[in-house]
Amino acid sequence: MGKKQAGRASVLFEEPPFVLSAASVVGKKEGDGPLGTYFDKIEMDSMLGKKNWEEAESELQTRASKLAIEKSGLSQEEIRYYFGGDLLGQLIATSFGSMGLQFPMFGIYGACSTMGEAMGLGAMAVEGGFADNIVACASSHFASAEKQFRFPLEYGNQRPYSATWTVTGCGAVVIGAGPSEKALARITGITTGKIVDMDFKDSMNMGAAMAMAALDTILQNFRDLGVDETYYDRIITGDLGQVGRRLLLDYLSGAGHDIESRYLDCGILIFDEEAQDTHAGGSGCGCSASVLCGYILPKLEEGAWKRVLFLPTGALLSTVSFNEGQSVPGIAHAVILEHVE
Amino acid sequence: MGKKQAGRASVLFEEPPFVLSAASVVGKKEGDGPLGTYFDKIEMDSMLGKKNWEEAESELQTRASKLAIEKSGLSQEEIRYYFGGDLLGQLIATSFGSMGLQFPMFGIYGACSTMGEAMGLGAMAVEGGFADNIVACASSHFASAEKQFRFPLEYGNQRPYSATWTVTGCGAVVIGAGPSEKALARITGITTGKIVDMDFKDSMNMGAAMAMAALDTILQNFRDLGVDETYYDRIITGDLGQVGRRLLLDYLSGAGHDIESRYLDCGILIFDEEAQDTHAGGSGCGCSASVLCGYILPKLEEGAWKRVLFLPTGALLSTVSFNEGQSVPGIAHAVILEHVE
Repeated sequence: MGKKQAGRASVLFEEPPFVLSAASVVGKKEGDGPLGTYFDKIEMDSMLGKKNWEEAESELQTRASKLAIEKSGLSQEEIRYYFGGDLLGQLIATSFGSMGLQFPMFGIYGACSTMGEAMGLGAMAVEGGFADNIVACASSHFASAEKQFRFPLEYGNQRPYSATWTVTGCGAVVIGAGPSEKALARITGITTGKIVDMDFKDSMNMGAAMAMAALDTILQNFRDLGVDETYYDRIITGDLGQVGRRLLLDYLSGAGHDIESRYLDCGILIFDEEAQDTHAGGSGCGCSASVLCGYILPKLEEGAWKRVLFLPTGALLSTVSFNEGQSVPGIAHAVILEHVE
Repeated sequence: MGKKQAGRASVLFEEPPFVLSAASVVGKKEGDGPLGTYFDKIEMDSMLGKKNWEEAESELQTRASKLAIEKSGLSQEEIRYYFGGDLLGQLIATSFGSMGLQFPMFGIYGACSTMGEAMGLGAMAVEGGFADNIVACASSHFASAEKQFRFPLEYGNQRPYSATWTVTGCGAVVIGAGPSEKALARITGITTGKIVDMDFKDSMNMGAAMAMAALDTILQNFRDLGVDETYYDRIITGDLGQVGRRLLLDYLSGAGHDIESRYLDCGILIFDEEAQDTHAGGSGCGCSASVLCGYILPKLEEGAWKRVLFLPTGALLSTVSFNEGQSVPGIAHAVILEHVE
């Protein structure tokens, strides 16, 4: 086993790549939420001047990626690859959103865990010497996701309290070999998730479906690195929401790990459950991606947190698989982020 | 720029990873075609004993992956990652097809270029020292693709001659650091495609939509490596079909490159156009993946070909993007495969 490989599913980088810059672009509802002041751009027009929701989501990727590159101080020519993904069938938000940038591109799908997958692959590309700098990006849009997965918005469909609200937002980071004095954080390792299927079939309770995947990746990370929860200042999941949060904390407690004091969930952070009627919390690829870029990375940059396990979580269903009676398996891809001294 | 990086979009590996084994599993129609005797398994039941087309496609991935691992002589524990993809919304064929293997997994989407993307990322993971061995896998199924993209099969819809026939098939390779005396080939480099949009809007002529992407990646490969067509014994695209083939050869001829004598297309190879009524040829992620595993890699193993540019091509549309009037952009990811002396 190579010396970068830790345990079954983790990598510890010998020369940890830097997160050189980050940009977050979100919708009005996300701007009205508790993290509103942290995001780079709040788009008041949910169509972003485009003809339909899908093009609007593509525009989120274009704007976030361009802003992240601009903030990195690098030219477009210095970016080698684009690792991007979204929730839509055949990744159309990513294809049409990244097309104008003309980077060699890798389309990635991990449902709402996509940002973790994109950063993991991007960090490997950089540390392996295959790229000096890359962009990792993930987006979602409330309306394009509702259209993809649920009912026409015009139905005004009722949603159970276990359901989450898809975030209209996008996060993009530039990851580079550095060295850089301005870096937001370093990526010191990753733990790649495997698919966890609990034969859970309620698509309106994806937090529960994903909680076991988060558990699996967290415990794998602890085993692979020989650490426990005290190794991290924060352990932050993507979008488990209130239901998934409770389950994850209970599962971990049962396994002898009390992480509650250091645990956060991007989906819970981004909305005010009471005031914004978002039920269990936010979700979507853009939820963890925008909270990472707007809120988590700045905390790491300033040193308020020294080491964070960032762990976007995905529910691997489609309307076809769901309608055919399949379960909703989960996956969670973890990235270890550390403050740069 | 790191020493592994060649030009704008190519990588030349310092220690080229080995393709340790390959497996191809296809449907009856593919078994009846000109390459029928080359495939490992021909499934006479298009449902593969499952309840629906999507589960049947998942089963193709399961069978091909397991067979590739078996042929490699490695244990499941020695495989570190699974890089897989398919054409279905939210990659359900891959999620449900790879779930039982329980590998840390990266979901990949590049439409019919997916096998090139999976092998490129997999080779980087191996050569970068992040994994000793990985599986790269891509599948498609005629009936699940028709359901996803076109009309119910029961309509018996007519198809123009420029249309292709989605291959029911899957190809899986094990890529490892080796050394190995039994390897089928080495991956000496990759050229990662960018999205090429010609504002082409005919979804029944995807060969034409993808031809310019293939052109772009081939010319990029020549520029990055400082070579021309004579560097390769064969240049093999994924599924341009008869229409895309003619366009690509004409474009390249206009650019001063006559590749006709060394050019092949997996989509043209896999079916007998006249006898099988498949019109322009085969297509789908499983087309290039199964032809690679069944036909191309054995030619490299025996030394009939010393160096091949394998170039799966993808059309980045969805029914949503198409119905909203978007164009059909293309992408092509190239892998340089060489005979092991």
